[in-house]
Amino acid sequence: MGPLFTLTTDFGAGSGYPAQMKGVILASFPDARIVDVSHAVPHFDVAAGALLLEAALARFPHDAIHVAVVDPGTGTSRRGLCVVSPEGGRVVGPDNGLLTPFLGPTARVYDLSNPDAVPPPESATFHGRDLFVPAAIFLAEGGTPERLGRPVADPVRLPWPTAAREADAIVGESVGADPFGNLLTSIRSGDVGRASVRSAVVGGRPARWVKTFGDVAPGELLAYVGSGGRVEVAVREGSAAAALGRVLGVPVRLAVSG
Amino acid sequence: MGPLFTLTTDFGAGSGYPAQMKGVILASFPDARIVDVSHAVPHFDVAAGALLLEAALARFPHDAIHVAVVDPGTGTSRRGLCVVSPEGGRVVGPDNGLLTPFLGPTARVYDLSNPDAVPPPESATFHGRDLFVPAAIFLAEGGTPERLGRPVADPVRLPWPTAAREADAIVGESVGADPFGNLLTSIRSGDVGRASVRSAVVGGRPARWVKTFGDVAPGELLAYVGSGGRVEVAVREGSAAAALGRVLGVPVRLAVSG
Amino acid sequence: MGPLFTLTTDFGAGSGYPAQMKGVILASFPDARIVDVSHAVPHFDVAAGALLLEAALARFPHDAIHVAVVDPGTGTSRRGLCVVSPEGGRVVGPDNGLLTPFLGPTARVYDLSNPDAVPPPESATFHGRDLFVPAAIFLAEGGTPERLGRPVADPVRLPWPTAAREADAIVGESVGADPFGNLLTSIRSGDVGRASVRSAVVGGRPARWVKTFGDVAPGELLAYVGSGGRVEVAVREGSAAAALGRVLGVPVRLAVSG
Repeated sequence: MGPLFTLTTDFGAGSGYPAQMKGVILASFPDARIVDVSHAVPHFDVAAGALLLEAALARFPHDAIHVAVVDPGTGTSRRGLCVVSPEGGRVVGPDNGLLTPFLGPTARVYDLSNPDAVPPPESATFHGRDLFVPAAIFLAEGGTPERLGRPVADPVRLPWPTAAREADAIVGESVGADPFGNLLTSIRSGDVGRASVRSAVVGGRPARWVKTFGDVAPGELLAYVGSGGRVEVAVREGSAAAALGRVLGVPVRLAVSG
Repeated sequence: MGPLFTLTTDFGAGSGYPAQMKGVILASFPDARIVDVSHAVPHFDVAAGALLLEAALARFPHDAIHVAVVDPGTGTSRRGLCVVSPEGGRVVGPDNGLLTPFLGPTARVYDLSNPDAVPPPESATFHGRDLFVPAAIFLAEGGTPERLGRPVADPVRLPWPTAAREADAIVGESVGADPFGNLLTSIRSGDVGRASVRSAVVGGRPARWVKTFGDVAPGELLAYVGSGGRVEVAVREGSAAAALGRVLGVPVRLAVSG
Repeated sequence: MGPLFTLTTDFGAGSGYPAQMKGVILASFPDARIVDVSHAVPHFDVAAGALLLEAALARFPHDAIHVAVVDPGTGTSRRGLCVVSPEGGRVVGPDNGLLTPFLGPTARVYDLSNPDAVPPPESATFHGRDLFVPAAIFLAEGGTPERLGRPVADPVRLPWPTAAREADAIVGESVGADPFGNLLTSIRSGDVGRASVRSAVVGGRPARWVKTFGDVAPGELLAYVGSGGRVEVAVREGSAAAALGRVLGVPVRLAVSG
């Protein structure tokens, strides 16, 4: 049984580019296990990719090696990174904010500057195949993250909205959506904790604060603690993104007692 | 070599949700073999998912464990099911009709009510990951379907149109389409059997009754016994769904002798 | 560890058809390794499929067995082929030009006419599952390409534009695009070789001749040697296909000295 790799890109599953990355992996590890997390991140949407990675990588065994590429700057001088964190294990990708969810206080971050670990890329335009996958293979071969390059103290971070606690409310905003149009928000399950939420208002509209879809009627707006650890906003059997007219920055207010 | 799982959902391959299901499987079975049947079932279209499962699961080795999730009622009180049948082997999914093709006379059906087999789901909104996959893992670990829960005598069944035999005709209707726009109909290959079909009429329009596409000219309407065991209607190098203006309920009449 | 298969089709990843092909493979080789190259080739677009295969198959280990199906003529009398070449290893698919990239001077080509190797297809309409996959399985079982059928001297070839060398220029045209809208051209990296390119003109518009995206500003038109061995034309963080208004036949002229 070979090492476990995951791939997350904005290349399009049908583009053939993810397959090229797999071909390179299989040439080194014929028995590699490879899981596609997504190849449908919207082109160049680094924040959407980061949110998707946050929810997905947490579910994988900790020995997995993750390659993530949403990279408008491919072939520029932006660095490549390997981030090692409790949230994501080992993740390789561009230094453009995509790895923000894994840049917590205990993260270790290295660039990919050691040519003895990863040779300069064959192609100047396909770093996914020619830089990030080789770095992941180096790790799978037993190489340590430290040997990939120099420690990085200032990795690029996306704005990563958090919730604010007021006297009688938790307030946040939408930060993305899934393909059903369910909105992800900046309020985490830990922000809610044991607080008793009395009501929810999303984009100025009342939403039912419930456990799940079945607690409201089809078409109703609801808010709940989602499966990825964030408060979500949805319309049962509909799309909250469509109902609210946008995906980003919709204000969310949970009135709480206690 | 680990157990074989298949996944069929309406989550979107790029949503990251199927990958979360795989992460959970791989945490239990690092050497699991996992095949995506489809993650592009139209959102909430239970009937489309059922048709797709009918055609696909028949092609898998009988030891495969199938997880199917098209579930507008996720997080409601609808039951989860494990169906064991000659047509599909072991299939785990919601009790909403999605598993209709496997509810034949010899099917055994159980709910997922035994908390010793499958703990209550972590999330109220992602039963695919937190209920159905754990049930599939229980089976892969050697658990029997009987131990998952109670026998179910009244699983939800979709309307599942069948063909009618008249003196000189077999009549049915379209029940779905594939991505090429080929229509699947309620007439099975067994309904045609050895009958000699003399002509076909689809939605009031004559169609050529042939073996395959090559028997007609590009643009012509044809009817034939499809690769999934149903009579299909197509337009060579075109879309029958587009030509006929709809996917469901298009009347199909095969004039037969013998 | 089982044999390595790749699949490339225009079936749509979510159609369930690729999964049926995998089910058949797994029934013969439970430990098969199966990689999806693409199932999103535009329906019936044989040339797009050929370009995608050219770039992708080169990246796979040479023992891989490739199945490729973009086949408007499924179920006609067109032959099936197995092509053995240095560029693609063993590739099985229809004789309709899809395998053109692998029909170089040293290619060996056989049809699939030996019923002892591959039985007549069960279905007249799904040769991917019932003809090409069985031929691939025959190879994986150790069967030789020669035993699949008769040598083929006249396989169908697509028009496959090449570059022309003029006194002070290399001229070609666009032949396809990737999902980012980057154009692939008929000029190969070998056509450029060590020549010094002074300037590029694409569809009458000047393009920057550079190494990579980072060498131009967002929105600028650029031309460069792409990761698949062809000169490509792109718009940084945009779509060259959209900017130029079409994908095929856009003239490309590289002014060179030396």
